[in-house]
Amino acid sequence: MATTIERSPEYKVVGTTPTRTDAIEKVTGKAQYAADIYLAGNLYGKILRSPHAHARIKSIDVSKARTLPGVKAVATHEDFPPIPDAVMARENEALNLRHLRDNVLASEKVLYEGQPVAALAADSPHVAEEALSLIKVEYEVLKPVMTVLEAMQPDAPVLHEKLPSGATMEQTHPNARRLLLQSGDIEQGFREADVIVEREFTTAMVHQGYIEPHATIVDVKRDGRMTVWTTTQSAYSYRDQISKILLIPQSMIKVIPTECGGAFGGKEVARLEPVAAILSRKAGKPVRIAMSRAEDLSATGPAPGCYIKVKIGANKDGRITAADMYFAYEAGAFPGAPVVQAATLGMGRYNVLNQRAEGYDVVVNRPKQNSYRAPGGPQIHFATEQLVDELAEKLGFDPIEFRRVNAAKEGDRNIQGIVYSRLGGEEVLQAMRKHPHYTAPLEGPNRGRGIAIGFKPGGGGVSWCNISVNPDGTLSMLSGSPDMSGTRLTTAMQAAETLGLPVELFSSGVGDSDDGGFATGSWGSRTAVATGAAAHNAALDIIKKMTERAAKIWGIDVEDVSYDEGVFTSRSDESKRSTFKELAEKLNSTGGTIIGQAVLEGVTIPPVAGHIIDVEVDPETGKIDILRCTVVQDVGRAIHPDIVEGQLQGGTIQGIGFALTEEYYYTSEGRLANKSLLDYRMPVALDAPHVETVIVEVPNPRQPYGVKPVGESTMTTPPAAIANAVYKAIGVRLSKLPMSPRNVLEAIWEQKA
Amino acid sequence: MATTIERSPEYKVVGTTPTRTDAIEKVTGKAQYAADIYLAGNLYGKILRSPHAHARIKSIDVSKARTLPGVKAVATHEDFPPIPDAVMARENEALNLRHLRDNVLASEKVLYEGQPVAALAADSPHVAEEALSLIKVEYEVLKPVMTVLEAMQPDAPVLHEKLPSGATMEQTHPNARRLLLQSGDIEQGFREADVIVEREFTTAMVHQGYIEPHATIVDVKRDGRMTVWTTTQSAYSYRDQISKILLIPQSMIKVIPTECGGAFGGKEVARLEPVAAILSRKAGKPVRIAMSRAEDLSATGPAPGCYIKVKIGANKDGRITAADMYFAYEAGAFPGAPVVQAATLGMGRYNVLNQRAEGYDVVVNRPKQNSYRAPGGPQIHFATEQLVDELAEKLGFDPIEFRRVNAAKEGDRNIQGIVYSRLGGEEVLQAMRKHPHYTAPLEGPNRGRGIAIGFKPGGGGVSWCNISVNPDGTLSMLSGSPDMSGTRLTTAMQAAETLGLPVELFSSGVGDSDDGGFATGSWGSRTAVATGAAAHNAALDIIKKMTERAAKIWGIDVEDVSYDEGVFTSRSDESKRSTFKELAEKLNSTGGTIIGQAVLEGVTIPPVAGHIIDVEVDPETGKIDILRCTVVQDVGRAIHPDIVEGQLQGGTIQGIGFALTEEYYYTSEGRLANKSLLDYRMPVALDAPHVETVIVEVPNPRQPYGVKPVGESTMTTPPAAIANAVYKAIGVRLSKLPMSPRNVLEAIWEQKA
Repeated sequence: MATTIERSPEYKVVGTTPTRTDAIEKVTGKAQYAADIYLAGNLYGKILRSPHAHARIKSIDVSKARTLPGVKAVATHEDFPPIPDAVMARENEALNLRHLRDNVLASEKVLYEGQPVAALAADSPHVAEEALSLIKVEYEVLKPVMTVLEAMQPDAPVLHEKLPSGATMEQTHPNARRLLLQSGDIEQGFREADVIVEREFTTAMVHQGYIEPHATIVDVKRDGRMTVWTTTQSAYSYRDQISKILLIPQSMIKVIPTECGGAFGGKEVARLEPVAAILSRKAGKPVRIAMSRAEDLSATGPAPGCYIKVKIGANKDGRITAADMYFAYEAGAFPGAPVVQAATLGMGRYNVLNQRAEGYDVVVNRPKQNSYRAPGGPQIHFATEQLVDELAEKLGFDPIEFRRVNAAKEGDRNIQGIVYSRLGGEEVLQAMRKHPHYTAPLEGPNRGRGIAIGFKPGGGGVSWCNISVNPDGTLSMLSGSPDMSGTRLTTAMQAAETLGLPVELFSSGVGDSDDGGFATGSWGSRTAVATGAAAHNAALDIIKKMTERAAKIWGIDVEDVSYDEGVFTSRSDESKRSTFKELAEKLNSTGGTIIGQAVLEGVTIPPVAGHIIDVEVDPETGKIDILRCTVVQDVGRAIHPDIVEGQLQGGTIQGIGFALTEEYYYTSEGRLANKSLLDYRMPVALDAPHVETVIVEVPNPRQPYGVKPVGESTMTTPPAAIANAVYKAIGVRLSKLPMSPRNVLEAIWEQKA
Repeated sequence: MATTIERSPEYKVVGTTPTRTDAIEKVTGKAQYAADIYLAGNLYGKILRSPHAHARIKSIDVSKARTLPGVKAVATHEDFPPIPDAVMARENEALNLRHLRDNVLASEKVLYEGQPVAALAADSPHVAEEALSLIKVEYEVLKPVMTVLEAMQPDAPVLHEKLPSGATMEQTHPNARRLLLQSGDIEQGFREADVIVEREFTTAMVHQGYIEPHATIVDVKRDGRMTVWTTTQSAYSYRDQISKILLIPQSMIKVIPTECGGAFGGKEVARLEPVAAILSRKAGKPVRIAMSRAEDLSATGPAPGCYIKVKIGANKDGRITAADMYFAYEAGAFPGAPVVQAATLGMGRYNVLNQRAEGYDVVVNRPKQNSYRAPGGPQIHFATEQLVDELAEKLGFDPIEFRRVNAAKEGDRNIQGIVYSRLGGEEVLQAMRKHPHYTAPLEGPNRGRGIAIGFKPGGGGVSWCNISVNPDGTLSMLSGSPDMSGTRLTTAMQAAETLGLPVELFSSGVGDSDDGGFATGSWGSRTAVATGAAAHNAALDIIKKMTERAAKIWGIDVEDVSYDEGVFTSRSDESKRSTFKELAEKLNSTGGTIIGQAVLEGVTIPPVAGHIIDVEVDPETGKIDILRCTVVQDVGRAIHPDIVEGQLQGGTIQGIGFALTEEYYYTSEGRLANKSLLDYRMPVALDAPHVETVIVEVPNPRQPYGVKPVGESTMTTPPAAIANAVYKAIGVRLSKLPMSPRNVLEAIWEQKA
């Protein structure tokens, strides 16, 4: 159970732990995921994927496949409508659209193994499978380039004729775009330093490892309108991508987000949906496509591997005076790696006046990377938190104290000049120091304790929430935010608290894309923060409208009506009294139903997290065992402490997988060698340590209940904390993720040599 | 094509005829009706129905059925939760709930052939069918009573121990409740009359004859929450009935209205849904139940037959001085016939100062009646419009002129004292008089021309509408009103007109019950009127919010921003200009999406309709042929004239079926003898005459575009107009519906005798 440091006794719903709305369904296997949805007469779609990491497509012959009995439609890149002149006139927009399309159905080249080349729909999945083998694609195989350092060589194979430019990104190599951010005076900063440390690091491409592979079913009507059931973090982003790719107005596309079996950033991009839409339109029937695990691992959007070189200086007072970060992140086949995020996350949790970040977004012959829980974060924290540890050691500081001295505070600025609001870094470090784990004896050889702190800002973006008052006094709430972590409940809890009603009166659901014009997706740890605030505002809207209705019914001034704990009363005449339920029953005969509504932009805020991790390293095999693991996070306010605890534990375990075992293993020809969950090693229950959690509450001043973003920060630090523990255990600094037995052994041998 | 008398040139969208949203889907057979929905692993439910019209249930033995392999759940009345003490304490409420339940699954007695007695769900429909035959029900068969006059006899078989009483209804017989309404001084009125006519009439029970039988699929989650897909006129009424019957909070029930294949009042009541919910809860799987046509005809809610006696007096000036109406309507097995409606419709289109209506709501061993297009209207108009015709003849008036003299006008009151707003009776009568049909020669023996006018007030109730502005400038609109007649389009057209945008930018859909707390169902001709007004208000809300946003972006006062025809402009600085689309693209970076919202109560208004019908009667066979048929209606404003024309034609054809061929034919044991569409004779294309339409537009002053309710009024007059034509043709007054060959012949023989 969670240890809560600061609690909020003034609340009745916030801070309690009612059963999650989706819990029973999921546990009993009754929840309807995208692949559980069948429509009468639906066809089965399958996708032909590139066997090559890099090749030119010379021809695609679908004639044999098309005539196989049972095949109802075939799709290739030819089925995309021509790019309009207006878009072609804007070069970047045209390039981005071509990339979006090429990742859905390749045109001139294939850029990674698994890239879709053609698709078809048939009466049965078996016929579809057979028909795939009848499609003849002629390729001119090209040399692939698999790592950022190779890709940035002058003579590297080139993926694209041109990369789109951007406000902050400048193309510096056929395969790379550069970001340069600076604050203060980096040279002066290093001159002020008493100790300077510098190291190089590499990390591996890893997958989000959600349980549910991508799946969709699309039903295109004769007039071109379509309904899309899919597993997504955002009905709106999928709608908008389908709209862009197929040039269909957004109003003609209804995206219904189904129950989602995990995403962690991996379900932001419509991959199957535009293909299923083309096939459905051609066949005049719904088309269902579900990825196999191998397809999902090899051809969705994993997190990028990278190369990082960081130099940090500090003075004898323990102040970090300068940080210089150079890094190159794998974009995969198309540009867009999280380099801005890496730059801001790099030293963001500290107040470092002199900083420089030179980041490269590098295309390589791998699937186009996508967000994964704190995008860019675990990689750069792996580097910077080891160097911070090293500086503390060299300057003779306790590692927590060193971090406390440098921790960013309200009013400090990050590398972009953005001013921080109330951070909980100080409180998190205090909680780590006070935790019994930090001072517990750790005996035995090859054992060590490491810490790290990190953060990932979140909580921004647009949310909407509608709450309808039902005639029996219950409430039906809808938002545009798919539920990744119990947010149907935690957002409703905030509305219930505001209304002074039990949350059990609420149903809380996820709207489809027609239920509101737009909401930012459920990513960036934003839903409980921003959609929760929208739910609060929608509840206030209900109070306002019901107060007006009570005044109307009683024939008194609105100002004379008070509302408290579910009861409306006249201030001047206490006989005029109505419970929420009683008034709800009267709404439809006194002016109509009441729908509370709110739209808002959430506010981004960085929540600090930290880990204390004990490890034991087997110097013979290189295997790292985690002996004890404690996670501490400032969550602002824990609406539902059990769910928050689950987030902290989940982020930690995923961070441990990132740290120890997970990696995309490509052959020299650029073929993924471990595209099954037996070979791609995510932590399973037997690998995962018990994760002790400490919830710190430093309320967010810009959220009605003080909620801060929770999902991502705890993901940033496990690799660094483990690496720091390994150093304590065996005196070896690890520079390569994953810290697999092989990589650990190599580091041990290298140090010995 | 429609002849439009008054047009509205000031509008750009209103009055045009874009293609209906649902047209292509329906015409190509792709529209998804309730019975088209399958869920993974759904079971098939079947219902065991009473073979008796009246019997006591001694026992139900489901043990054999339950153990048949493949049967997953069985339901009987025993599965309903006990009625709470609080409800039991309120006798009427308890009685109503018992009736509601008994009509879903009978408890102590069965009261009509076809009443559900037990239900089960199995892996396949065939197993379910077989299992039904294994349920053993022991009945004590009782004598049925099939007509109102028999049921009101002192020694009639009694259906219920007690009937609920009501504010206006008083129980006067074990089988009957009485309504008494009076206005003015009925005795004095008859004393002032120069001519008095009096006649008796009977009409038959008829069915709405929608194409799509009742069907549902219900998925109950483990925590009791359920999703219900069904064909309905109101997601909310179904939700609320399921909630009442099963004692489940409304927030736990999501009702999704599917595409609806006709309803006409027949889909207001949840019949299958509570049963499917019980079965689904027990089986832990979705349960699908679809009625056969025989089940639908024999066990849904047809329109009541009735007995009517009316006496009307008028003076030499042609003024009606008094009207005395006595009528008894079949309630079917449970009380609730439309007697208030009959009383107000009886003479409502005329200004009759002295009126009396004594109406009986009589239970008989037939299915519980339900609404059918202008409930109670065709029956009472059949009586009163014949007598009005007779008075006109006896007083030497032209039948149109006589009606014009008496037509109710703005400010007149009905029998309940309700004051009329702007009626179009005068204009409709003028249009009838001016129409070439009225003065066209009609030669040949046994031919005659009849007219009748009538009305059915409509347009009231609660509607909500949400319109979301999508980032690409298209709009997604939702309302709580299922689309019975193209209202997705006609309500969006009103919003488009208000916004000055093409309606093609809109998607317009029907929300489920979670999308808004409540909306009155799509009945009472209300949707284009009330939901259309809500759409207008939601569009105004968008204009308000987008104007505020433009002001915010431009840094100017809201008052400085004007909006016209899709363009926002600064009044003071014309360089500040943004099209709707341009501003829509900016919303999500300037404060979030915009959702226009409105809830309103519609205003009830009576729209007058009239028919001119020429017939030829074959005196040998009694068959009536319609030679020519013209319908005229004041629609206030035709938003989409083609759809309005379709409504006028549809109401006319259904009225002709009511008039000439349709009737429930029961055997002496109370078994329905014609429960197929071969034997229950609705007009088919070969029977239906071409219906000429005249759209009169006398704008409704209380609806933004002047729309009046359209659906029902034209249904009230065909029987009367045909009867008046028959009288002109052969000099015989018909008093019995349907005016089938048999009934016509009997009337001819009676007059000869």
